[in-house]
Amino acid sequence: MRNVIVALDAMGGDFGPKVTVPAAIQALSLFPELKIILTGDRNSIKSCLLFSGYQSNTRLSIEHTKIVVSDSKRPSLALRSSVGSSMEMAINLVSSNLANACVSGGNTGALMALSCFRLKLLPGLERPALVSALPTKLRKKTWMLDLGANVSSDAESLFQFAIMGSALAEQHLRRSARVAILNVGVEEIKGNNLVKRCSEMLSKSKLVNFIGYIEGNQLLYDVADVIVCDGFVGNICLKVCEGTAKLFIDKLKNNVINSSIKGWIAKKLFSELFDELRALNPDRYNGASFLGLRGVVIKSHGKADVSAIVNAIGEAVYEVQEQVSTCIRDRLKAVLLERKK
Amino acid sequence: MRNVIVALDAMGGDFGPKVTVPAAIQALSLFPELKIILTGDRNSIKSCLLFSGYQSNTRLSIEHTKIVVSDSKRPSLALRSSVGSSMEMAINLVSSNLANACVSGGNTGALMALSCFRLKLLPGLERPALVSALPTKLRKKTWMLDLGANVSSDAESLFQFAIMGSALAEQHLRRSARVAILNVGVEEIKGNNLVKRCSEMLSKSKLVNFIGYIEGNQLLYDVADVIVCDGFVGNICLKVCEGTAKLFIDKLKNNVINSSIKGWIAKKLFSELFDELRALNPDRYNGASFLGLRGVVIKSHGKADVSAIVNAIGEAVYEVQEQVSTCIRDRLKAVLLERKK
Repeated sequence: MRNVIVALDAMGGDFGPKVTVPAAIQALSLFPELKIILTGDRNSIKSCLLFSGYQSNTRLSIEHTKIVVSDSKRPSLALRSSVGSSMEMAINLVSSNLANACVSGGNTGALMALSCFRLKLLPGLERPALVSALPTKLRKKTWMLDLGANVSSDAESLFQFAIMGSALAEQHLRRSARVAILNVGVEEIKGNNLVKRCSEMLSKSKLVNFIGYIEGNQLLYDVADVIVCDGFVGNICLKVCEGTAKLFIDKLKNNVINSSIKGWIAKKLFSELFDELRALNPDRYNGASFLGLRGVVIKSHGKADVSAIVNAIGEAVYEVQEQVSTCIRDRLKAVLLERKK
Repeated sequence: MRNVIVALDAMGGDFGPKVTVPAAIQALSLFPELKIILTGDRNSIKSCLLFSGYQSNTRLSIEHTKIVVSDSKRPSLALRSSVGSSMEMAINLVSSNLANACVSGGNTGALMALSCFRLKLLPGLERPALVSALPTKLRKKTWMLDLGANVSSDAESLFQFAIMGSALAEQHLRRSARVAILNVGVEEIKGNNLVKRCSEMLSKSKLVNFIGYIEGNQLLYDVADVIVCDGFVGNICLKVCEGTAKLFIDKLKNNVINSSIKGWIAKKLFSELFDELRALNPDRYNGASFLGLRGVVIKSHGKADVSAIVNAIGEAVYEVQEQVSTCIRDRLKAVLLERKK
């Protein structure tokens, strides 16, 4: 396997080095081809390394900065505070080819703005998109985008999201990916102008396996490999899905798993089922990618724990080794050519 | 209690008189103040009445027509086929004051178009909205609108949805209703222009208890009494919620409830929990209202069974007795006056 260097923003997320450092150590033991550069406060990082009983080796290094991106939700403020920060440092390592990918649990708006500014978008692309894999009924995955990189999109952007999602899913699946647009009905006549226009564009392209519209209740039912929607709809839908799943799991937990004798019986009889239900919560996964950049940037949840951050690093390793960014670039190029014909 | 006459489209929905007729009989026994006019094919209705062992009385009558609205999803086609149909007849009974409310499980687009055309919108209103109550964590209800009466809306429409939803919820709750806008974040800076503009308008009004934005994961968590969004987002979100809930309930059913000995133990120990989980599926409820009309029109699910149609009739009785349409009219009037000041 090809070696991969990941720049991990050690200060990003709600818990900083306390979770990013153990996650880095765990990822190094999982992926022999991986090197990690931790960006952030050297002293904090070192004390976490010491606490984790880490033996220093050449696969892990530290780039020091004391500056951390503000967790303010105001993009302008977050961006102003990003100069010289652990997040900016991690992205700069990618833009200067000293790392292959960046993973950060810091402010999403700042991460997106910095990534676009430093790494630049792929040629012909209007906007990047945030994509993540959802678990489905049949223990498979569906990739959904955009999950909120943009609050409004035009049909051309939606079309480009479909191309990018398709390229990503096909790398994972090793087969043609079924691409659908999320809509209020499956009939051609349904929906707003945005989805209708995008549907027309996708129908015309031979480079996408477009299967039409799907409705919200089909999200986790494995009817499509790629689900395309604008960032406003995608962000809200993913959260509705997570919230509903969490409510069911919490009810089960409180009533069954935690209730002494009943809980003991339930655990014995239904542990497999409970695992299956927990696996259906999209919130359990971690590592959404910004697609459309000249480099790999993975956004980790702010509240991610050690194993969730390991997942995000794993996604980075995968995308570098499978050259996802190059695949997307090539697919976009082919679409541009197809249009000129 | 005030007497209520409901015109029930006996032919609407996937199962026609086979479910609408028994539902009518059950509703009459539940609501002593109720009279029902069944619209549709007299012979089919009569044979279903006979089959149900119904003793004729003055509280149930039939208005005969053989015409049924096409279930084509093309609104134009459905509308063309609606002339003289059981659905049109039911709406006409309301517009000519021979009934107080109409309940139909027929084509949504046709029902909305016919209702707007025959009953007219309340003064000052731009668009009607489809509203339904969602179950929440604490066994309470949250009213969400628009659920798909419109595929795109402007800020003024969204603002009017908030006013209408507020009036409806307050009739139910007998207290001030917390109104929130569904958005991609809770901070003021978040969202697209539509929600930002609507938020500004709601903040200025003293006639709505506007509590700000909520995110998708809070939908079932009882943080607001009224959740406002455009019809495209609302329709998709409701279905995402239903689909996720159904997936969890189906998994439980297949693995626990239906599995012989395990199932028997589970049923004994956790029947209350299973009921609670089933009650959290919004799909279980029935009877979405078109708000903003000069009359009460309730849309029943196409696939609704007898008890679900009884629920829809119950919603119609409630809205007539509580004069929901008048409350909404008065609230809209007050808002217009507030603006002129």
